[in-house]
Amino acid sequence: MRDYTDIILSRRVEGPPRGELLAHDYASINVFFYPETVALIGASGKPGAFSHEMLRNLATRFKGKVYAVNPKYKEILGVPSYPSILDIPDPVDLAVIAVRAQRVPQALEEAGRKGVRGAIIVAGGFAETGEEGKRLQEAIVSIAKRYGVRIVGPNCIGVYNAVNGLDTFFLPPEKMRRPPKGYIAVVSQSGAYLTTMMDWLSSEGVGIVKAINIGNKADVDEAEIIGYYASQEYVRAIMVYMEGVSPGRGRALVEAVRRARDNGKKLVVLKGGKTSYGARAAKSHTAALAGDYAVFSSILREAGAVVAETPTEFVDIAKALSFMGHLEPRGRRVLVVTNAGGPGVLATDELSRRGLALPQTPRDAVEELSKLLPPIVALGNPVDLTGQASDEDYQLVLEKLAGRSEFDSLLVIAPVQPATMTIRVADIIADTVWRVKKPATVMTIGADYGELVKEYLDSRGIPAYPLPDRAAYSLWALMEASKPLCNMAKPSNPPGMAVELVEKALKEGRNKLLEHEALELLEHYEVPVAPYCLAKTPDEASACAEKIASNRLVAKIVSPDIIHKSDVGGVLLGVDPAKAREAYDTVIRRARAHAPDARIVGVLFQAEAPKGVEVIVGSRRDEGFGPIVVYGMGGILVELLRDFSIGLAPTSRCRALEMIRETKSSKLLEGYRGSERKDIDSLAEAITRISRITAEIDSVKEVDVNPIMVYEKGVLAVDARVIIA
Amino acid sequence: MRDYTDIILSRRVEGPPRGELLAHDYASINVFFYPETVALIGASGKPGAFSHEMLRNLATRFKGKVYAVNPKYKEILGVPSYPSILDIPDPVDLAVIAVRAQRVPQALEEAGRKGVRGAIIVAGGFAETGEEGKRLQEAIVSIAKRYGVRIVGPNCIGVYNAVNGLDTFFLPPEKMRRPPKGYIAVVSQSGAYLTTMMDWLSSEGVGIVKAINIGNKADVDEAEIIGYYASQEYVRAIMVYMEGVSPGRGRALVEAVRRARDNGKKLVVLKGGKTSYGARAAKSHTAALAGDYAVFSSILREAGAVVAETPTEFVDIAKALSFMGHLEPRGRRVLVVTNAGGPGVLATDELSRRGLALPQTPRDAVEELSKLLPPIVALGNPVDLTGQASDEDYQLVLEKLAGRSEFDSLLVIAPVQPATMTIRVADIIADTVWRVKKPATVMTIGADYGELVKEYLDSRGIPAYPLPDRAAYSLWALMEASKPLCNMAKPSNPPGMAVELVEKALKEGRNKLLEHEALELLEHYEVPVAPYCLAKTPDEASACAEKIASNRLVAKIVSPDIIHKSDVGGVLLGVDPAKAREAYDTVIRRARAHAPDARIVGVLFQAEAPKGVEVIVGSRRDEGFGPIVVYGMGGILVELLRDFSIGLAPTSRCRALEMIRETKSSKLLEGYRGSERKDIDSLAEAITRISRITAEIDSVKEVDVNPIMVYEKGVLAVDARVIIA
Repeated sequence: MRDYTDIILSRRVEGPPRGELLAHDYASINVFFYPETVALIGASGKPGAFSHEMLRNLATRFKGKVYAVNPKYKEILGVPSYPSILDIPDPVDLAVIAVRAQRVPQALEEAGRKGVRGAIIVAGGFAETGEEGKRLQEAIVSIAKRYGVRIVGPNCIGVYNAVNGLDTFFLPPEKMRRPPKGYIAVVSQSGAYLTTMMDWLSSEGVGIVKAINIGNKADVDEAEIIGYYASQEYVRAIMVYMEGVSPGRGRALVEAVRRARDNGKKLVVLKGGKTSYGARAAKSHTAALAGDYAVFSSILREAGAVVAETPTEFVDIAKALSFMGHLEPRGRRVLVVTNAGGPGVLATDELSRRGLALPQTPRDAVEELSKLLPPIVALGNPVDLTGQASDEDYQLVLEKLAGRSEFDSLLVIAPVQPATMTIRVADIIADTVWRVKKPATVMTIGADYGELVKEYLDSRGIPAYPLPDRAAYSLWALMEASKPLCNMAKPSNPPGMAVELVEKALKEGRNKLLEHEALELLEHYEVPVAPYCLAKTPDEASACAEKIASNRLVAKIVSPDIIHKSDVGGVLLGVDPAKAREAYDTVIRRARAHAPDARIVGVLFQAEAPKGVEVIVGSRRDEGFGPIVVYGMGGILVELLRDFSIGLAPTSRCRALEMIRETKSSKLLEGYRGSERKDIDSLAEAITRISRITAEIDSVKEVDVNPIMVYEKGVLAVDARVIIA
Repeated sequence: MRDYTDIILSRRVEGPPRGELLAHDYASINVFFYPETVALIGASGKPGAFSHEMLRNLATRFKGKVYAVNPKYKEILGVPSYPSILDIPDPVDLAVIAVRAQRVPQALEEAGRKGVRGAIIVAGGFAETGEEGKRLQEAIVSIAKRYGVRIVGPNCIGVYNAVNGLDTFFLPPEKMRRPPKGYIAVVSQSGAYLTTMMDWLSSEGVGIVKAINIGNKADVDEAEIIGYYASQEYVRAIMVYMEGVSPGRGRALVEAVRRARDNGKKLVVLKGGKTSYGARAAKSHTAALAGDYAVFSSILREAGAVVAETPTEFVDIAKALSFMGHLEPRGRRVLVVTNAGGPGVLATDELSRRGLALPQTPRDAVEELSKLLPPIVALGNPVDLTGQASDEDYQLVLEKLAGRSEFDSLLVIAPVQPATMTIRVADIIADTVWRVKKPATVMTIGADYGELVKEYLDSRGIPAYPLPDRAAYSLWALMEASKPLCNMAKPSNPPGMAVELVEKALKEGRNKLLEHEALELLEHYEVPVAPYCLAKTPDEASACAEKIASNRLVAKIVSPDIIHKSDVGGVLLGVDPAKAREAYDTVIRRARAHAPDARIVGVLFQAEAPKGVEVIVGSRRDEGFGPIVVYGMGGILVELLRDFSIGLAPTSRCRALEMIRETKSSKLLEGYRGSERKDIDSLAEAITRISRITAEIDSVKEVDVNPIMVYEKGVLAVDARVIIA
């Protein structure tokens, strides 16, 4: 394989051999982007057929060797054609298999025997169509494994590499534009959405360097592609469109995103199938299980990606990240300069809605500027130069303010519509931005002049947009993509007694811990629990009351066979400790009366926890991401209003604190309306400990601690449910 | 004044004299759009000066007479110029005043003497700059009143009318494109944002017929312009950009929006200054008080406008409304047809997020189509024809499904990128849509072919977009703009005893009703109240207990001087009715001890209301909109999570039911998690009654009923606070 090195804007850069640039894990992906020799199996001789157009792209633009495989021809479009890949005289690196689904296994088998290292499988008709297709997909995966061939697809359009002209997309240029060369690398689960983006990026003048469509992702998936892109010198921004995380591949995805972030790449992710209707559509499309969007978006954000909510945002944000992703903003304070009031207001609304701050212009600067500018200029932030502004006014204001330490980034609104404005303002903006080296976006418009200004700014690496909201959220994304991340926590060895407890229950054939066991599990993880005690006799009940030493107790029946304890009268509140024995009898008697066949373990006595702020911490296994932790305020309303936060488990202390802050209801903990601030540190500690349970003990499927009381000092877990398997 | 009639796409339509088409209220606006003679006061002879460019537009494009006013010239650009407007030999309808702020009063005075009926005042430097400017603005308003001249501005760029070429925007065409003629009329508070929109609409190929910028709106405001547009035959969609409602003008705005809706116009509104930073920016820009965005958007929606959240949405939605606003969808069920999986998924997500439904394709149609289409096609909804789809497949599916009664609207995703697709698909889509006459939007892309398809569809009145989210939310807007509206309630005469109660308190110099008075006020409005009784002696306390006949009472000190009753020990819960006398003494003694100087009226006894779902209903006066009502769930969390709804007061029963449904927490009332459904009808009734209080009694400023308990049958108001002035 040749030593290709990414080049950008026709600048060729010599680098070390490709192999050394690649991390070991992602090395096998390289063949899809840098093959020396490609064979197109099923190349058609008929113009218009997709495999003919594909061959045309390969024959005319790819800087490597190309062979066709089709027994009907000796040559197509000047490319030699052979009856089988096995007949090709040269070694082949990459096979592009463009035959019908039923004929793929044979083609792949032969490609394997030929020694290819990668195969792109184009045909649909696999797992996305149902059971039969799923079996066919499994069959090709097993052939690929046998020969050590990596697969991209099936149900995909393959690969585009601006560096070496490799382009298996079978759309002719008059139907799909190719964007200019640029710093973006794309991975898309959907082929049709990728071709839409290629066109849209082109018409927006935004460049890309590589793109790949992975379709049903029978083998290669987003995680590997992102990891590969992370190693590519000339990638600055990575666009990821996905409809679902393959089972068990969520952690690899998170690691790849973190790896890319560590290597200075910025990521923007768009998910299809956010809603239930959307998920239904996704499933029939690329067989993706859409999963829960709240989980997906929370965890991708935690890993450091910007999550776009719409296709429009997706491309706009990618543009900003690829132009300016190498500038690391120090904070969230924006300076807005405008000559257009309305657009200034609208941009400010959008910045503000996304949590950015617009500090007032420093007083000394206001004083200085007010002497130099007409009185009609508003010198707050936004600085509104009004429709009478000239290029010189922009120069003056940007010179005085852009470099000030009070501002971390710049949003310049500069429609060139007024007669007083010229295209020179573009130079002024670009010179300033690259002098002060702060992230910046620009909104500009103004007929043909506006387009000139926009294109000139883009060409100097300043992302410009025609509408204020788009400039504003793209600036936000520059901050979001650079926000400091919490370190990931690692699972430790679980406490031996916790494992024993779970194993004992499993041995007894149970799929749930009993109340006292669940509380004991929390105690093994050092989560503070409201004092409790299991009584198996009336005497033990009295002893329990004494041990707990609280003046109000709760008594609950403990039985593996009774689910709804209140329904059988199995719960007593406000029990006087002096009457624990009677409470024991009452609870047992009622349970026996209502459920005569239930096995009864005893009665759990617990101290009534003092009233605090009630929160919920749960931990469960997501099909894609594995153990996750969910935090929210207690009570039925929060569930309806969906005010909760989600993190990977185990959760670091830093991330637990972030999760608490992410909920709107966290204000209740911070001392709302004159109430005292609650012990947020202890709560964060409890979240990290609970998150470890599912992360460290494989057989624990779900932990729900509901409620945990949060006090001014300390927390107390009151009730817990633990599902095991 | 000439009898102009709007023409569209160069089709001239004869109609009745303009005067008859106009409602009386809005007739005076006509002069701004259809003057026979215009005088430009302050026209400059210097190319590049804004008043020179303005004159060029008027001289070259306006189909009426134009005069310049400038003592330095006899003629500018071939237009005769006079020292004063008073020297012009003809009568003048409209004066465009383009002199500096300080010189405006004199120019307006002369225009008034000349007998003009309207004046556009361009200069800034009025209320948006502070106190001095505000006085200047008041001065010109009083001159205008004296002469019966209507004013547009100050701080504005005036008027654009595609019908007669009137164009006071002073930007030359190479700096601001003029959109094609179309069915949209625009009113914008911001001039710079209007010029941005003019350009953006042009580059999107969306036509407009009229536009006006009203700046500081010293006289003419949005309400009058909307009302005027409502009377215009060739207006189908109205775009409104505003930053704030002028004090007291909210009702006029609502009436104008309703009037436009009644006349079959569709409205889309964008507000600047939604956030606190944005509001700060708006204030320095057009002196707008931004107000509360939740109030603004709720009330505009209630009146029947679509509220856009971003500038991008604003223009996209206006396009759809102007193309298809005359088709009234019957419901919210969408059929999606696509050849592109990813874009289909993304469009579906956006539709779903906005509350539209995608019912499954009817079984009989699936059976029929499955025989005619390849097995790879997914026939659910979206119908995914896959990347191999041809024009004929679209034809087949649209023929069978588009007219089905199961679907109310269509979203067609038809990128023409695949080789199997041609531009003929545009004909197929357009023919189908105009045959079935259902609202439809299209997403298409595909290099130059894609642009051809988009432009062709647009020219046939089918709104097409290059990205799926934009096509999806524009389709949503077509439903939203046609949703059935609740009738507006009208205030009645307030109950005489309610008025007496409030007047008595006012006479005593109080700005708040006492507890028992507030409850009595509710009773006068027939809101069910938990039984209560005021005791002024221990004997009366016993009598009260007997009268209330509840076995648990609350006792509260009643004093105009004690605000925080609990702090002085002035509240007792769980009072035994047999011990009412003792409770009376305790409350009085504690109050005296803590607040020896407080005037004490007595002790309020009230039955403890049984536990129900706690809600809050408040009514207050908004500076712009007047009396409004706010509904939400009780408790501190709902406030943090902002889950409440807002309506105009008085509120109709229909609207009250809608307001309840608009909150997420309303699920608690509908029987959540096995609890019984609560009495939503009685709650709606209580909301309407409480809303009437501020709407009918001018001196009531604020009513807060917190909580109201909602039961399976009936509701009970427990506590109320009433502010008067």
